[in-house]
Amino acid sequence: MRAEILAVGTELLLGQIVNTNAQYLSRGLAELGIDVYYQTVVGDNKERLIQAIEIARGRADLLVFTGGLGPTLDDLTRDALAEYLGLSVELHEPTMEKIVSMFAGRGGAFVESNRRQALLVKGATPLRNDTGLAVGNALRVGETCYLLLPGPPREMKPMFDNDGSAWLKEQLGPALTLHSVMLKFAGIGESGLEDLLIDLIREQRDPTIAPYAKEGEVAIRVSTKASDAEEASRKLEGALTEIRGRTSAYLYAEEDVPIEAMIVRKLTEQQRTLTLAESCTGGMVSELITTIPGSAVVFLGGIVTYSNGMKLKQLGVPEALLEGPDAPGAISPETAAAMAEGMRRVADSDFAVSITGNAGPAAAEDKPVGLVYIGLAERGRETRVEKLQLSGDREGIRVRAAKRALYMLWLSLSGRG
Amino acid sequence: MRAEILAVGTELLLGQIVNTNAQYLSRGLAELGIDVYYQTVVGDNKERLIQAIEIARGRADLLVFTGGLGPTLDDLTRDALAEYLGLSVELHEPTMEKIVSMFAGRGGAFVESNRRQALLVKGATPLRNDTGLAVGNALRVGETCYLLLPGPPREMKPMFDNDGSAWLKEQLGPALTLHSVMLKFAGIGESGLEDLLIDLIREQRDPTIAPYAKEGEVAIRVSTKASDAEEASRKLEGALTEIRGRTSAYLYAEEDVPIEAMIVRKLTEQQRTLTLAESCTGGMVSELITTIPGSAVVFLGGIVTYSNGMKLKQLGVPEALLEGPDAPGAISPETAAAMAEGMRRVADSDFAVSITGNAGPAAAEDKPVGLVYIGLAERGRETRVEKLQLSGDREGIRVRAAKRALYMLWLSLSGRG
Repeated sequence: MRAEILAVGTELLLGQIVNTNAQYLSRGLAELGIDVYYQTVVGDNKERLIQAIEIARGRADLLVFTGGLGPTLDDLTRDALAEYLGLSVELHEPTMEKIVSMFAGRGGAFVESNRRQALLVKGATPLRNDTGLAVGNALRVGETCYLLLPGPPREMKPMFDNDGSAWLKEQLGPALTLHSVMLKFAGIGESGLEDLLIDLIREQRDPTIAPYAKEGEVAIRVSTKASDAEEASRKLEGALTEIRGRTSAYLYAEEDVPIEAMIVRKLTEQQRTLTLAESCTGGMVSELITTIPGSAVVFLGGIVTYSNGMKLKQLGVPEALLEGPDAPGAISPETAAAMAEGMRRVADSDFAVSITGNAGPAAAEDKPVGLVYIGLAERGRETRVEKLQLSGDREGIRVRAAKRALYMLWLSLSGRG
Repeated sequence: MRAEILAVGTELLLGQIVNTNAQYLSRGLAELGIDVYYQTVVGDNKERLIQAIEIARGRADLLVFTGGLGPTLDDLTRDALAEYLGLSVELHEPTMEKIVSMFAGRGGAFVESNRRQALLVKGATPLRNDTGLAVGNALRVGETCYLLLPGPPREMKPMFDNDGSAWLKEQLGPALTLHSVMLKFAGIGESGLEDLLIDLIREQRDPTIAPYAKEGEVAIRVSTKASDAEEASRKLEGALTEIRGRTSAYLYAEEDVPIEAMIVRKLTEQQRTLTLAESCTGGMVSELITTIPGSAVVFLGGIVTYSNGMKLKQLGVPEALLEGPDAPGAISPETAAAMAEGMRRVADSDFAVSITGNAGPAAAEDKPVGLVYIGLAERGRETRVEKLQLSGDREGIRVRAAKRALYMLWLSLSGRG
């Protein structure tokens, strides 16, 4: 099946929002084994929308729309498709009842235009909207399938993942679907990882091996088409075993989770606690750790020591390290170690990680931009310090330093470092 | 002039990356007074690319391409356009020299395929690439203009902003361009702001008034077309004065900067210092403040007290507040005040802001998810505490609490609260 994604909305053409829906749907369709050949964005204009439908129908047999199902007169997708197909629209009673009762519950007067959100193109299957009001539409006319989804991602995603995918699977019939495993890596860059796996990537056929990279994180998706999970796992196993063997020092998860989630999981399993002493990252590592629900059990807290005074007073970093002509200064391995040890002592935690460095934009203490030291103090072990020379802008340096600190901690928690 | 943006790249159709280029270009073209009618994404396939060019030429007079200018055989944009127009391609010598000398400088062997990055469609104006190798192409054939830009945003953006925009302005001739002012608000939601301005938004013609919203931040863009900055400022002034008058308690900047930048600016002007004591936001406010270059002068540091032990020990919060059956607990106005005062005392800063609350997912201390207290201790003033009941998921609650804390601080720094 060949798909085209049509995003409807003038706000996209004005650049007010990014079309993240197209990415989400492209991935989701790929997982169902459906190839996406085009993505189109068109404004809230019925004539141009109908022209776009006409073009898409000529080159795809599945048209997935996002946007234009809301209550206002600018929301034209359903009307345009009905007009193009020569079909009427009809009221979907359960959605209408939900809208009316929602307004009653809020104590507000029912606004007539909301009726539009309960309309279906005649013959369409309704798609449930658990996070909003507009009902989705799924329709097959001849050999062409049409899927109408809302524009807001928080409504579109669950509708596609639930009723939308289920309907598409029915249309596809018993066929091979895409199964994949996401491998997440830390402590290595995209090109370093590619070097380790270059022959596998070059010779890949089935399964496919696709690298992904975001700021400070690298992932590889290993995928195959199979009729069920068991066949898929048999087909994937060889490649996974080979990759695991070559990358064990960096492979922190076989699911799409950030490294901070694995750290909270390992600390919880090992019943150990963590504290953080951050300078140039300014609280970023604390912030990442505390995004994870349940982190409160293992993360006692942290200190952001942006001034030397805070380093002296809160962490007990010796003044001789920070001040005086011959002192190593705040950005030094000695201070990184003293910060981590001071933090661990003050809070009596099992681990304390420290970060001190120069994120730019200007040199500090005559230390170059990008010079960062990470300290790791661990109960019962000698404190370790790692020196980094990072490149990039201020935010890039901060993110990479934070991710590197998490990697050091993960190595220690998994008995690798 | 009507434009269509064509992004070329199979990685977009696979959902591996988001098409942020389309947003950037849509905004940039709008600022030049050029309307974007369609955005199209097509894969690295010459036949389909030529079909997409054919369709776009029938409905637009400016085609802006991103991607497909690189060295590999998958990079087809220039070849496809040349074939479609029946033109040859020719080598752009200065780009070729730059590529050769870059390889020489790296000590690597010149790879022949890189020659492709120096090719121009015959008759095209070269567009300088300061951040990469591939030269851009700008070409007018009859009434249709073609702009070929690289795919990586760090190459595409400067090329569009510099040579690309300049070339487009030449094609447009002396015309009206879009001038706009971005107004940034804090402490108020999108709907609250719309209520204050509803008549202006409804009756808008020229200038236009467009609201924007991101998590925890609201902005309004006031725009008009004018022949120069002076005329624009005359046309914008009335609407700006009216909006300023109605929103002064929330309007923190008339440029597109985050509120943390304004806070660092005001602290610097007033030569005052700040510290932070964060619980449920886990270092997010520190992280935001330290994204701003120069924050080290005014931000002394912060303490993330995720455990009661840290609150007691580091901030001197009285044990009676935290423990015992009748204690108000960690999530209480008393503890918020004690955290802020303790932090200010410990670091001797002019301001200290504290945040304590329950970001979810489960109730804590029998306090509901979303209950947050913010404390503001200021040298020479009584400590203030604000109670919030926020909705949303864990991350949403944390972001809104952090932004609200920054808003309280901004009010105080600007003599409004």
